[in-house]
Amino acid sequence: MRKVLIGVMGPGDAASPKAVEMAFTLGQLIAKEGWVLLSGGRNSGIMDAVNKGAKSKNGLTVGIIPAVDNSHTSGDVDIAIVTGMGSARNNINILTADALIVVAESIGSGTASEACLALKAKKPIILVAPDITTQTFFENLARHLTHTVLTPQEAIAKAKEIISSHDN
Amino acid sequence: MRKVLIGVMGPGDAASPKAVEMAFTLGQLIAKEGWVLLSGGRNSGIMDAVNKGAKSKNGLTVGIIPAVDNSHTSGDVDIAIVTGMGSARNNINILTADALIVVAESIGSGTASEACLALKAKKPIILVAPDITTQTFFENLARHLTHTVLTPQEAIAKAKEIISSHDN
Amino acid sequence: MRKVLIGVMGPGDAASPKAVEMAFTLGQLIAKEGWVLLSGGRNSGIMDAVNKGAKSKNGLTVGIIPAVDNSHTSGDVDIAIVTGMGSARNNINILTADALIVVAESIGSGTASEACLALKAKKPIILVAPDITTQTFFENLARHLTHTVLTPQEAIAKAKEIISSHDN
Amino acid sequence: MRKVLIGVMGPGDAASPKAVEMAFTLGQLIAKEGWVLLSGGRNSGIMDAVNKGAKSKNGLTVGIIPAVDNSHTSGDVDIAIVTGMGSARNNINILTADALIVVAESIGSGTASEACLALKAKKPIILVAPDITTQTFFENLARHLTHTVLTPQEAIAKAKEIISSHDN
Repeated sequence: MRKVLIGVMGPGDAASPKAVEMAFTLGQLIAKEGWVLLSGGRNSGIMDAVNKGAKSKNGLTVGIIPAVDNSHTSGDVDIAIVTGMGSARNNINILTADALIVVAESIGSGTASEACLALKAKKPIILVAPDITTQTFFENLARHLTHTVLTPQEAIAKAKEIISSHDN
Repeated sequence: MRKVLIGVMGPGDAASPKAVEMAFTLGQLIAKEGWVLLSGGRNSGIMDAVNKGAKSKNGLTVGIIPAVDNSHTSGDVDIAIVTGMGSARNNINILTADALIVVAESIGSGTASEACLALKAKKPIILVAPDITTQTFFENLARHLTHTVLTPQEAIAKAKEIISSHDN
Repeated sequence: MRKVLIGVMGPGDAASPKAVEMAFTLGQLIAKEGWVLLSGGRNSGIMDAVNKGAKSKNGLTVGIIPAVDNSHTSGDVDIAIVTGMGSARNNINILTADALIVVAESIGSGTASEACLALKAKKPIILVAPDITTQTFFENLARHLTHTVLTPQEAIAKAKEIISSHDN
Repeated sequence: MRKVLIGVMGPGDAASPKAVEMAFTLGQLIAKEGWVLLSGGRNSGIMDAVNKGAKSKNGLTVGIIPAVDNSHTSGDVDIAIVTGMGSARNNINILTADALIVVAESIGSGTASEACLALKAKKPIILVAPDITTQTFFENLARHLTHTVLTPQEAIAKAKEIISSHDN
């Protein structure tokens, strides 16, 4: 039976320590819920941290890899989907996730593209700790699809709401 | 010999009348320069207007189509590249363009994703008439790659600069 | 830690009863080995049967979905990767699989494209029960990458060989 | 107004001298018809030869590039569509072409994948000088969509038939 996949998106090498810490916590919380973690899968920044968090709680982790092989895949990804498509794979991330959590603290352009693609596909996004410009930018694009929270715990609560609204 | 392709990105159905007018002018100016126009190719909003402008000056027009066929392709696209990939084709637009002009007036999420993907690929973007939030958002992502102009004419001048810097 | 993914490719609606039966057995055998099943994920033909077989033995199943949503996804897919890319997703299937089993009995053009893309990426293929034309065609393309077997059991044995050769 | 695009597919580095010669002639004939040439766009084998042929008769040439930049693009491609998707771009080639000519002499796995993807999309293919195994393989996949010819001239005649049948 189809499992619930929660996408966590966020910066790679340029991730701030605070963003990395939030990602690790998000991974732990997602695993505790029994959800499958979906991420960009590379061995850097938010992608690596969120997978580490999920595995620390025995979660199942899926990575959508931009490269043609797994030489830069996080060691904490269980199931590596190798796309060979570079950033074009960002659209797969957002189509696949049942709910999308965006670590907006120290957001980069790749993560921002995923948030935009989600809104384009009429999928809600959960921004964690965005600055005011980022929050306003996404609210201007699609106010009713943009949710802002301050902590990983609030992000999980909002993800639950989104998933349960699908079921109705 | 390889021709210069100038990408013009902008909203579809939700484009404002002012944005549509700017797109038409951009199409005309691109054709006058002898450049090939690259766009998302659909028969709505900025995509349709910029192709109409270019054809009114006998330009050559290329559209990167998200659908699996040409049933929604602008009638002013000469060369329709049918991708069947939906919004994943946005990454092709930005990899293909020698310079990228983003009609930011009434910007939507699809256009915003293309601007983000361009910055991710380390390609400069030219924002035409953005509001202050949009301008600040992209400058925060990559200040040295984000150029802001007010008019189509200024956008063309900036595109010339970008292209000539490639040649050096 | 990264799990082993075994791809099983084969026809959809046009699958013969014999091909469907072999696919069900392949799914069972893959699950028994503790491998993850990778397939095209749709609810028809070989894709549906192989997932049913794997789930009947409590395996884990991943589907790479061509559509933009899960309305035609097999009910026995646990993890549905929604690509929205149509047949362009076939290249993801072959890049992702650690070994590729092609149900060649009643082969169709989609399955054949995956076998070709695998050889292009220098990945071995295991053809199950091909007719002589199919076998010769693929051997002519890449003899040392094309393995032919008659039964699901032989396919699994060959897959083990391929996987263990990766480890060396 | 939308131009007619004729796709010519064939092997890269492994192309035989005879296949290269046929590709050059095909490029010339396509240009003489006023059609736009569509190819995989790389600077090797059939891709390079067919573009050279078309440019020798002042044709317009479009290449769908697998790489992320133009460092391996044929110098005779006018309009380079940079996909960054590797072989996943093969599906774009076949969706885009109004008619598909496959240089089957010394066929390789990449070219074969394009012929299969075309049949999957219910598009006719024109095989030029296939061996008997190749011809039979594709006829078995879809007899009514597979046309076999011996010379470039016959391929052009068949392409005309296919295009005119679209118009009716």
